[in-house]
Amino acid sequence: MQRGHQTWVFENQPAILSTATVVGPFEARGPLAGDFDILHGDLWLGQDSYEKAQKKMLEEACEKAIEKAGLQKQDIQFFLAGDLLNQIISSSFAARTMAMPFIGLYGACSTSMESLALGALIVNSKAGNNVLCGTVSHNAAVEKQFRYPNEYGAQKPPTAQWTATAAGVALLAAEGEGPRVDCATIGRIVDMGISDPYNMGAAMAPAAVDTITAHIRDLRIDPREYDLIATGDLGRVGYEIAGDLLKKHNIDIPADIFTDCGLLIYGPEQQPEVLAGGSGCGCSAAVTYGHILNRMKRGELGKVLIVATGALLSPLSYQQKESIPCIAHAVSIVSGH
Amino acid sequence: MQRGHQTWVFENQPAILSTATVVGPFEARGPLAGDFDILHGDLWLGQDSYEKAQKKMLEEACEKAIEKAGLQKQDIQFFLAGDLLNQIISSSFAARTMAMPFIGLYGACSTSMESLALGALIVNSKAGNNVLCGTVSHNAAVEKQFRYPNEYGAQKPPTAQWTATAAGVALLAAEGEGPRVDCATIGRIVDMGISDPYNMGAAMAPAAVDTITAHIRDLRIDPREYDLIATGDLGRVGYEIAGDLLKKHNIDIPADIFTDCGLLIYGPEQQPEVLAGGSGCGCSAAVTYGHILNRMKRGELGKVLIVATGALLSPLSYQQKESIPCIAHAVSIVSGH
Repeated sequence: MQRGHQTWVFENQPAILSTATVVGPFEARGPLAGDFDILHGDLWLGQDSYEKAQKKMLEEACEKAIEKAGLQKQDIQFFLAGDLLNQIISSSFAARTMAMPFIGLYGACSTSMESLALGALIVNSKAGNNVLCGTVSHNAAVEKQFRYPNEYGAQKPPTAQWTATAAGVALLAAEGEGPRVDCATIGRIVDMGISDPYNMGAAMAPAAVDTITAHIRDLRIDPREYDLIATGDLGRVGYEIAGDLLKKHNIDIPADIFTDCGLLIYGPEQQPEVLAGGSGCGCSAAVTYGHILNRMKRGELGKVLIVATGALLSPLSYQQKESIPCIAHAVSIVSGH
Repeated sequence: MQRGHQTWVFENQPAILSTATVVGPFEARGPLAGDFDILHGDLWLGQDSYEKAQKKMLEEACEKAIEKAGLQKQDIQFFLAGDLLNQIISSSFAARTMAMPFIGLYGACSTSMESLALGALIVNSKAGNNVLCGTVSHNAAVEKQFRYPNEYGAQKPPTAQWTATAAGVALLAAEGEGPRVDCATIGRIVDMGISDPYNMGAAMAPAAVDTITAHIRDLRIDPREYDLIATGDLGRVGYEIAGDLLKKHNIDIPADIFTDCGLLIYGPEQQPEVLAGGSGCGCSAAVTYGHILNRMKRGELGKVLIVATGALLSPLSYQQKESIPCIAHAVSIVSGH
């Protein structure tokens, strides 16, 4: 299973039986709208708080994924999830609704691939079957907690990113149709001393490069084996820095296979709000489980590497003048065809 | 590996090569002082914030465990940790210092056994070796975040628990001397509608009983196979409720083998401060990795079950009038003799 220092190779290749994605009204106006399962016109989802709306999105994604796989709630053996809210309340409260054995995670925006990697480990090692892995973020709930309530209208610099209102869930099983989880590289913390929470792309880019480097080293592969390598979510600023750093490390990833989930989810006309790009736990989850897996199903992509990045700051660590520790976890998915 | 619906049986029985525990001045005056590795006289640990002191305790526990196993930092393959602070900053910042591939977890006070269960899964399935699992809590950092700064002197009801200033870490490996991790039961969320954060023992007791019931059902064992079953951390109120619930479920655990980590860490003379008992991520970790494993090494206990309980509330979920979702993860440890 173990390859090199940081990589797991899943010899039983767990299948992604189904995925489900849920997004808010702003994402529903973006270029990937057709790839998402549930599009909400109401940012509140009929709830009386944004936190409850965030929880509701994760519940809906779980229920949709279970339904798409033709399963029932009680067929699910483990639920792995985390989110950006303090004490991951969206995930814990969704796990209460789902009533499944629950493993709570925290990896900020890397949670999408952290949960998929651990879920694949469980299925691959026959420690469980029908494992649900997911995450969620809600723009208004997350911005309020980390920065200011949106209603304040605080100005942001052009390096800032837009927290996606999105949930994404994958249902893993030992057998069945679907793309396969091939291997995963668990990241180390990388901290280059950046302390500006309005420039998280720059903070996270070195972590993405560190994990890509480890992945290539552990597996001794050429990055061109992948049809797509998508970081998530570096945005425009971080994506450019990552490209420069990869060149410095003599890792040649052609521009046409290197992309970023935070650059895909919004269109050019959304740029005035979005600034440097999308972010938030749900961004890489929804882009991967919606858009990228749809492309795999259409036969456009055979093998992809998703490198989900997380900025592990808290508002308190920022106030205490700490820099931002960052991490990235990478998961390789291969077409089931 | 999989047994029943919620339980993993580790057929390769990962070894606990070493453990390390670090406590604060109040815990150093308690009855288990002789079981801890590092006892601090200064609640600040020479740091300029309690949050940094909490991080420092986890770093010290990691370094001590590595040293006791005769290993170096670079020998450690994965670090699994979480804590109660928002965005688990103590764990992420400690992981930055340790520079190891990091898997961030959140299970509130169940994190001790959540991390041990996942670490054992990694070692058992040969996905890694030399895996560090741990957690930490610091009374002043945690009380400030969840309730009030201690300096305010807010009154507490007798059902309240005292957050332990403690860190506990275990180092797992495929081979070597030491107690063995035998199996683990991953808990479901149980929420009986209690919303009082000053009575978390009562909130968590049903989750502990749910997981013990699942463990016994999945493995078809008699609880008397264990020399000790320790919940953590229910305190006096939750412990009594758990006992009553077990009787209702017709599960007979003799009183002399059923205990609670929150009842062990402080002595009767500390009761005026401690009220219903100890709590906090570090409580069950330090009691298990210090006191209970020492008893195993002395041959007093052959097989123990640690049922770490977590109250998955946040100050915001409490303000929004939500009840407290609770969880418990159980890990069975057998003597290496």
